[in-house]
Amino acid sequence: MSTRVADQGAAERLQVGVLGARGKVGAEVVKAVEAADDLDFTVGVDQGDPIASLVDSGTRVVVDFTHPDVVMDNLRFCVDNGIHAVVGTTGFDDSRLDTLRGWLADSPGTGVLIAPNFSIGAILMMRFSAIAAPFFESVEVVELHHPTKADAPSGTAGRTAELIAAARREAGSAPIPDATSTGLDGARGADVDGVRVHSVRVRGLVAHQEVILGGLGETLTIRHDSLDRVSFTPGVLTGVRRIGSFPGLTVGLEHFLDLG
Amino acid sequence: MSTRVADQGAAERLQVGVLGARGKVGAEVVKAVEAADDLDFTVGVDQGDPIASLVDSGTRVVVDFTHPDVVMDNLRFCVDNGIHAVVGTTGFDDSRLDTLRGWLADSPGTGVLIAPNFSIGAILMMRFSAIAAPFFESVEVVELHHPTKADAPSGTAGRTAELIAAARREAGSAPIPDATSTGLDGARGADVDGVRVHSVRVRGLVAHQEVILGGLGETLTIRHDSLDRVSFTPGVLTGVRRIGSFPGLTVGLEHFLDLG
Amino acid sequence: MSTRVADQGAAERLQVGVLGARGKVGAEVVKAVEAADDLDFTVGVDQGDPIASLVDSGTRVVVDFTHPDVVMDNLRFCVDNGIHAVVGTTGFDDSRLDTLRGWLADSPGTGVLIAPNFSIGAILMMRFSAIAAPFFESVEVVELHHPTKADAPSGTAGRTAELIAAARREAGSAPIPDATSTGLDGARGADVDGVRVHSVRVRGLVAHQEVILGGLGETLTIRHDSLDRVSFTPGVLTGVRRIGSFPGLTVGLEHFLDLG
Amino acid sequence: MSTRVADQGAAERLQVGVLGARGKVGAEVVKAVEAADDLDFTVGVDQGDPIASLVDSGTRVVVDFTHPDVVMDNLRFCVDNGIHAVVGTTGFDDSRLDTLRGWLADSPGTGVLIAPNFSIGAILMMRFSAIAAPFFESVEVVELHHPTKADAPSGTAGRTAELIAAARREAGSAPIPDATSTGLDGARGADVDGVRVHSVRVRGLVAHQEVILGGLGETLTIRHDSLDRVSFTPGVLTGVRRIGSFPGLTVGLEHFLDLG
Repeated sequence: MSTRVADQGAAERLQVGVLGARGKVGAEVVKAVEAADDLDFTVGVDQGDPIASLVDSGTRVVVDFTHPDVVMDNLRFCVDNGIHAVVGTTGFDDSRLDTLRGWLADSPGTGVLIAPNFSIGAILMMRFSAIAAPFFESVEVVELHHPTKADAPSGTAGRTAELIAAARREAGSAPIPDATSTGLDGARGADVDGVRVHSVRVRGLVAHQEVILGGLGETLTIRHDSLDRVSFTPGVLTGVRRIGSFPGLTVGLEHFLDLG
Repeated sequence: MSTRVADQGAAERLQVGVLGARGKVGAEVVKAVEAADDLDFTVGVDQGDPIASLVDSGTRVVVDFTHPDVVMDNLRFCVDNGIHAVVGTTGFDDSRLDTLRGWLADSPGTGVLIAPNFSIGAILMMRFSAIAAPFFESVEVVELHHPTKADAPSGTAGRTAELIAAARREAGSAPIPDATSTGLDGARGADVDGVRVHSVRVRGLVAHQEVILGGLGETLTIRHDSLDRVSFTPGVLTGVRRIGSFPGLTVGLEHFLDLG
Repeated sequence: MSTRVADQGAAERLQVGVLGARGKVGAEVVKAVEAADDLDFTVGVDQGDPIASLVDSGTRVVVDFTHPDVVMDNLRFCVDNGIHAVVGTTGFDDSRLDTLRGWLADSPGTGVLIAPNFSIGAILMMRFSAIAAPFFESVEVVELHHPTKADAPSGTAGRTAELIAAARREAGSAPIPDATSTGLDGARGADVDGVRVHSVRVRGLVAHQEVILGGLGETLTIRHDSLDRVSFTPGVLTGVRRIGSFPGLTVGLEHFLDLG
Repeated sequence: MSTRVADQGAAERLQVGVLGARGKVGAEVVKAVEAADDLDFTVGVDQGDPIASLVDSGTRVVVDFTHPDVVMDNLRFCVDNGIHAVVGTTGFDDSRLDTLRGWLADSPGTGVLIAPNFSIGAILMMRFSAIAAPFFESVEVVELHHPTKADAPSGTAGRTAELIAAARREAGSAPIPDATSTGLDGARGADVDGVRVHSVRVRGLVAHQEVILGGLGETLTIRHDSLDRVSFTPGVLTGVRRIGSFPGLTVGLEHFLDLG
């Protein structure tokens, strides 16, 4: 457990604590909070540390990157004490979300953000693809990763294709044209809700995705390149800064981004 | 002047005429209207043809790709007769737009769309770039064209940089970081409102633009490739189909695109 | 049949005739020859025209874009008369190539080039990919075309993968790593000789291919974009200019390109 | 100084030592040698360690990533003792290279490789660009790096442009076409020997370069992405494995790569 005394002269600064502070991701969050001019790091809590230190330290917002087994207890404590929470821990199903909504109903003014993805680039890629998809005849997804990845397509690519398919259904778009009548198995990729997804695996790559949309005489390509795992920290800090304006439960960082 | 009798049994189809029908662009519009299932081509008018044929043919929407010298007379006639107009002709300044607003005030229910760019891909590229720009530390524009182009940067690239700069100003974004202290003149491109713009000229290219945004550990790239001049026709047809719901003056097709 | 009198004062200029001159491709070749400073167009021959005009006009090199049914007769005439031939017509199997070699043995000094592909960009993409493939752990091919294409993968992509596989076999390269253990059918593309090939089909695209090679911490990408069918003409003119230095039979324009 | 006893039963394995073994780069080389099935790491030598241990340990090839002040003494020792050297240390001018050639003349069979760049991807990008440049009308270079880089353009981009310019001069290529007559300062990039070079600086990028070549209706793009500094190790190991076949002095790893 590490503690830092807040700068008394900067009352407008936000007091931020971290749950899971000694984990790989949590440690990066601590560093990012410490480096931010408008945030104060109050206390890091990990296995064996007393969670009550969050209250004692005057923490206003907590970031939680812990484990599905402990995250609900953590959130119960935070909501009961009126501490906002920005949560990257996985394992939330409808039942857990309902439980959270119940707790938050008794603590008006407190906000909890559950986000499966904090990369702003990935979130914008998905959002822009869904907005653009009904304006074009064709759209396909190509994701590119290192060759030690076990699943193909990636979770993000599958999710992107689903969002594209939903946007086109809602807009009444025609099926995507494809005259392929001869060829080799697999050449045209996987079919996710009518959207073709291709998975490239090449040594040296990290995590990349390209959405290619096309109509008569033109194409629009939206590409996200994630080159370093620290790419999630700006999204976490955005969540921390805005959670105070979003009381109740929010699922997905995109709702904090004013995307119009 | 070419005329086509509308299909009597399809009352919901839209009657569309074309001003400048024998020009290069106008001829493509005629073809696109004829090919659309929900539109009927009524009449094409060009130099020497009687504009009154628009009324006689029951035209509800006109597309105008003519010349700055005649477009105001064309629009006066259309507005007076309650015919909507979708206009790609250039040369509109504030004074002309004010005149148009005056005419439209006397003809409630009639709509005029003035659009400098009908490429949906280009419009989305600009719009997404402006939305995304405040979320990233860095953003630069690279535009690529054939080597017979006279201006550098392209008009679209300059406009994109201005929109990005405006979005960042409004969001209070910090200046874009750049530690360049030594090098060759021009290497870092042109400065448009604090945004760097690079112009590539290579034989074989048509018209392409890439906006590269980046933050800690990740980049987002939005690229538009225009490979054929017919890429403007889907945008024109979108304007034709939606103009009836936008009475008064609209400048820019983006306002018809439900971009959220 | 069109004829042009050669400029008497320019003895070093090359006299070039075209077989199939009224076809789509042949007509482009005629235009390209006429536009070249160092070439003279002598005569265009098509169905019904006397092939003897090639001799009468002093033609030194012929370009043949005709039909498999007539190309052997054309070449017999050319070889017998000592006229070099640059041939884009398809349909050459081993038996036809052997026949050609026999004819050429009786006409030393005469050259025939049979080329399945005259796009210099495509040829260099294939060649560079094969050279580079043994230096990297991974390599995959992504080809992108308009959605009216019937076959997937494209012929060029299949051929590229075969050349890559052959180069790796010869160098004793290890199999390309791939840890994919779960996913959707087709996500990892088609398998061509152990090289993964992905086929993207999007409206607005023309003909594009990307070869992605990767090793520890780096990738090398070789991309060819074909945006207009005239892209074959520089390759044809290169063939015309160099055929005189390559007596006998040559298969593939790459042998004329001094690629080391 | 660390030492490892060679496996007696594997006489065909190569004994490799490292000079500068405790430096950042040297330490990566030690790891890479240890991980290679066909190489044995013998001894690491750094400041204060006795260089004679190279001889005692039976080292056949040395890798030197040290400092310009000591590298010549290191090489004198290696050449005198018939140990091959693969050198990434900088600071070699013509005078030093001449001195090296003199020493090597007295030690026939010993090889020294001086290489300014061990990234195989970068070497191939430069080589392919120079080969391809004379076949296209246009060629430009775009390099993209993080915004803390001080120089623009990068050294690699400048070198690439010089190699392209030299290849075009030798082939008698025409000047690159450019009709730009109006625009903003810097838009067209820097001029390096008649080749335009553009430097993009965006947070999140590492080190990337794209060479775009174009002719009638087609473009060829060669792109290198360096995402991790370990990308130099495969090149170093290639140097180690082949140096025995290249007695005398070699400058540039490309000469070991059988690029034709």
